[in-house]
Amino acid sequence: MADAPNKLILLRHGESEWNAKNLFTGWVDVNLTDKGEREAVRGGELLKDAGLLPDVLHTSTLRRAIRTANIALDAADRAWIPVHRSWRLNERHYGALQGKDKAATLAEFGEEQFTQWRRSYDVPPPELADGAEWSQSGDPRYALIPSELLPRTECLKDVVLRMLPYWYDSIVPDLTAGRTVLVAAHGNSLRALVKHLDGVSDADIVGLNIPTGIPLLYELDADYRPLTPGGRYLDPEAARAAIQAVANQGKK
Amino acid sequence: MADAPNKLILLRHGESEWNAKNLFTGWVDVNLTDKGEREAVRGGELLKDAGLLPDVLHTSTLRRAIRTANIALDAADRAWIPVHRSWRLNERHYGALQGKDKAATLAEFGEEQFTQWRRSYDVPPPELADGAEWSQSGDPRYALIPSELLPRTECLKDVVLRMLPYWYDSIVPDLTAGRTVLVAAHGNSLRALVKHLDGVSDADIVGLNIPTGIPLLYELDADYRPLTPGGRYLDPEAARAAIQAVANQGKK
Repeated sequence: MADAPNKLILLRHGESEWNAKNLFTGWVDVNLTDKGEREAVRGGELLKDAGLLPDVLHTSTLRRAIRTANIALDAADRAWIPVHRSWRLNERHYGALQGKDKAATLAEFGEEQFTQWRRSYDVPPPELADGAEWSQSGDPRYALIPSELLPRTECLKDVVLRMLPYWYDSIVPDLTAGRTVLVAAHGNSLRALVKHLDGVSDADIVGLNIPTGIPLLYELDADYRPLTPGGRYLDPEAARAAIQAVANQGKK
Repeated sequence: MADAPNKLILLRHGESEWNAKNLFTGWVDVNLTDKGEREAVRGGELLKDAGLLPDVLHTSTLRRAIRTANIALDAADRAWIPVHRSWRLNERHYGALQGKDKAATLAEFGEEQFTQWRRSYDVPPPELADGAEWSQSGDPRYALIPSELLPRTECLKDVVLRMLPYWYDSIVPDLTAGRTVLVAAHGNSLRALVKHLDGVSDADIVGLNIPTGIPLLYELDADYRPLTPGGRYLDPEAARAAIQAVANQGKK
């Protein structure tokens, strides 16, 4: 097995209640919709049908990713594998935009500002003050993390910087041990990881979307770089359609 | 917090498909019934209403315990806590009885033999051969465990002996760190733990039943012994009724 490529599977959570309502979510801990649960089951069935059976799971601390993983692994008969969770895999913190309607934000601030906040690599939205509505200050799940470390807003560059230590320190060692690793996380924390893996430029990452619920397999070489750039979705047809839909999000 | 008692919460999984069918289950990885899922939700609500919020979860490697914990923690807004799993928390291995109907077994072998297999402290049922139907040999979740360590049958004494190392090495350190610990497991692995905690005699443990889905709280002293013998069920009324029902199991 020493010569077999390392297998890394990325899974973006299924539709959440706030995806469905077109609200900026970020670190707000919303649940999956029924559709999101069905996506998770389908994701697990795709893993099982492909014989891609994770040996270990890494998730964010947000329930939409945790439940997606639980449901998918149950469908793949792998509910029993070890699990690790970290805030470093959380969705991008959307700052003061958290809880706001995307269409209303677009109307209020205009296309240019809206697109910059949503898509620029290094311009974060305004900070969300501790104690404000939709702030995570005081949330017990972050109680042991130094306050200075916890984001009040993030651009994608910030997500890359806080995600990478977890990649190097927690995920790579599992790959080194020969384990097939499942990472269940979010649109932007997975974009951050894909940016790193594929060496996507700051400019090009803006146009890269990851669909929900469709496992994305990366086979990695000894340097933990993809054998096939961009990896391979287990349902490429559905992935193509979903990527287009994500690109249109917020434009209604 | 150093002087506060350590909090240990035991949760037996809700009704499984084979509980409902009155079959011996043991290590066979059956799922929860709808009733079992509802029990798990209720268990989580009891935790939340009592303000008893687990900081860390320990489960067996069997899905009925894993799903019970996932559902209960989701209901208690604690799906994000760290998780550890071990075969040492699995249900008692029922040997050659696994997959057999309880009533038919009672009819075939008679009350004395049946009760001895179900309830004696130190008489295991006949071994289940590797590769036989309902054997777990070849199950990937046990692939890294030496074959000589994996049970082919167990009496409750065997369960105590294989469970205790996990108690001492994995659960106690979490308690020492001041964490509220949730253990989601099975009728017999939890009886084994209660036997240890309360110092129940080999004779008396035979009559002790733990109901499904009702969290059992132990507050422990500095020696990890109960401040109140027997602990406290979060719904004592329901626990009393359910204990009676478990005692009647297999007698229909």
